[in-house]
Amino acid sequence: MAKRKVTITDIADEAGVSVPTVSRVVNGRDDVSPATRARVEELLDRHGYRRRGTSGSRAALLDLVFTDLDSPWAVEIIRGVEEVAHEAGVGTVVSAIHDRAGSARQWLTNLRARASDGVILVTSALGPGIQDELRRLGVPLVVVDPAGSSAPKEPTIGATNWAGGMAATEHLLELGHRRIGFIQGPPRLLCSRARLDGYRAALDAADVPADTALVVPGDFYHEAGFTGCNRLLNLPEPPTAVFAASDQMALGAIEALRRRGLRVPEDMSVVGFDDLPEVRWSAPPLTTVRQPLSEMGRLAAQMALDLARRVQPASPRMELATELVVRASTAPPREV
Amino acid sequence: MAKRKVTITDIADEAGVSVPTVSRVVNGRDDVSPATRARVEELLDRHGYRRRGTSGSRAALLDLVFTDLDSPWAVEIIRGVEEVAHEAGVGTVVSAIHDRAGSARQWLTNLRARASDGVILVTSALGPGIQDELRRLGVPLVVVDPAGSSAPKEPTIGATNWAGGMAATEHLLELGHRRIGFIQGPPRLLCSRARLDGYRAALDAADVPADTALVVPGDFYHEAGFTGCNRLLNLPEPPTAVFAASDQMALGAIEALRRRGLRVPEDMSVVGFDDLPEVRWSAPPLTTVRQPLSEMGRLAAQMALDLARRVQPASPRMELATELVVRASTAPPREV
Repeated sequence: MAKRKVTITDIADEAGVSVPTVSRVVNGRDDVSPATRARVEELLDRHGYRRRGTSGSRAALLDLVFTDLDSPWAVEIIRGVEEVAHEAGVGTVVSAIHDRAGSARQWLTNLRARASDGVILVTSALGPGIQDELRRLGVPLVVVDPAGSSAPKEPTIGATNWAGGMAATEHLLELGHRRIGFIQGPPRLLCSRARLDGYRAALDAADVPADTALVVPGDFYHEAGFTGCNRLLNLPEPPTAVFAASDQMALGAIEALRRRGLRVPEDMSVVGFDDLPEVRWSAPPLTTVRQPLSEMGRLAAQMALDLARRVQPASPRMELATELVVRASTAPPREV
Repeated sequence: MAKRKVTITDIADEAGVSVPTVSRVVNGRDDVSPATRARVEELLDRHGYRRRGTSGSRAALLDLVFTDLDSPWAVEIIRGVEEVAHEAGVGTVVSAIHDRAGSARQWLTNLRARASDGVILVTSALGPGIQDELRRLGVPLVVVDPAGSSAPKEPTIGATNWAGGMAATEHLLELGHRRIGFIQGPPRLLCSRARLDGYRAALDAADVPADTALVVPGDFYHEAGFTGCNRLLNLPEPPTAVFAASDQMALGAIEALRRRGLRVPEDMSVVGFDDLPEVRWSAPPLTTVRQPLSEMGRLAAQMALDLARRVQPASPRMELATELVVRASTAPPREV
């Protein structure tokens, strides 16, 4: 913001040291060389940076904004952002603006009153109008976008959804499955399309004909996995494995199988997508595609702190690698 | 804090209106009566409360502090705190101070630099030394304590662990179970003891003799539920139902049963404690004791905002009611 006070990131920029180093000096920690400390102290004094405890002083703040905080992966992103911000002596302000324009507007007003040093948006939590206002405020903005919801104007951190969809399908093919069901995510999200295309690409690469009857709609939520799995089981020739585009849908599929007395993985293999913490503990533990959510949060926080120092990111969009995590919900098909 | 700037809570106090009302005026929203707006505006000007956008202004902040952010219920508490804070135009700063004293000290330094208006500690996230420094700073402090870790010096919000332990056990007794296993929480936490005592009280009330072989140690984590359930299954006369003192241990117990080809609830009933979001989706959906975590967060935030207005809470410790949630993991025993 044009008129806002000098921040530790400004000081770090001018001193040519890292933000954590400045924060160590500000915080009176002793793990800084005397020469560096002297240089930073001099800059802090010259710019009148207010120290701890002096009335009216403020520490740097990063705003982390979600649509809602009921998403099971919110805490993963919060953890990543907080780790980097905490190390830099920066506070992480977590907000949920829901889908109400009034709520987003109040958040924006609070943000201006806080003179926040940067904003991390999780997916498209803000309407375009609000995003334009943010741009006018000049507050650095980074988008964390596991959903791949849109072509970004701001620096955006995503995950390799297409590669993840391909890896999950290849795993099932390597186990010997040929009829592999796919439960889709919401069609409006790019990540849904990317995961489906990854599934199809793996089938193509293995010369397995794609059967459109094996692709059923979904929305990432548990109920859709339950319903979608039942649809697949009711087919004249059901699949021997199901790849659900989210962990919640995979758990729904496992419940649908349990209700029919079918065992996972003996009777049907199930693969999810996300690697939510709880799927390590599902019965059976879920084979899934890991989204590096806390790493995405860490990178977003670092990028926002860099932008506050006017350091531009290497690329406007970065995708962190997804990774197949093989647990107990997949096995070779009965027929093999 | 003695020297800190006037906050919207101070203004609300003096104007005799609610914090949300002042925040609406500050935020320029139109849902305030002209008379109230005029009175609040006058106070804001007299106290020199800095408005949105003016350089160096700051909005009120609440600090929400966890030991770690990997706890599966952290997001539930964050959601509750953020709802109340957001409505009051207050930012929620989320921190994880881990168990490193240095980290807690840096957080305290950042807190002072932020001139935070209140602190909500989740369980005993801070060592006594840090808590004493907080007390000297005069920052209002509220403890959210699902674990019942200690007799509080500060206003503390807990849950009715004893009543929850009793309700879960009564549910199993009503289904006809007489041999009910119990997997304990960590003995150092009061909530573990309270849940165990609730279990014993229910058995006593039903004239069911307590068999000490049916009570096995645990620590709230998944692995302990897995191990504890196997211990119970290896008894000469195993129980027909297991009450685990946490949802994670209940999921571990379900996995132990699955590995032996035993079905839940046909072969063994399982009850958990917490009602984490994911246990609605476990296979089978888990019968458990709900901890009102987001409500605890809401109450803690309201209490911290009240304390910032020098309004003392009605009681130094409040326990919010736990509630039995019956799902698909419990049924009458085979024998009946």
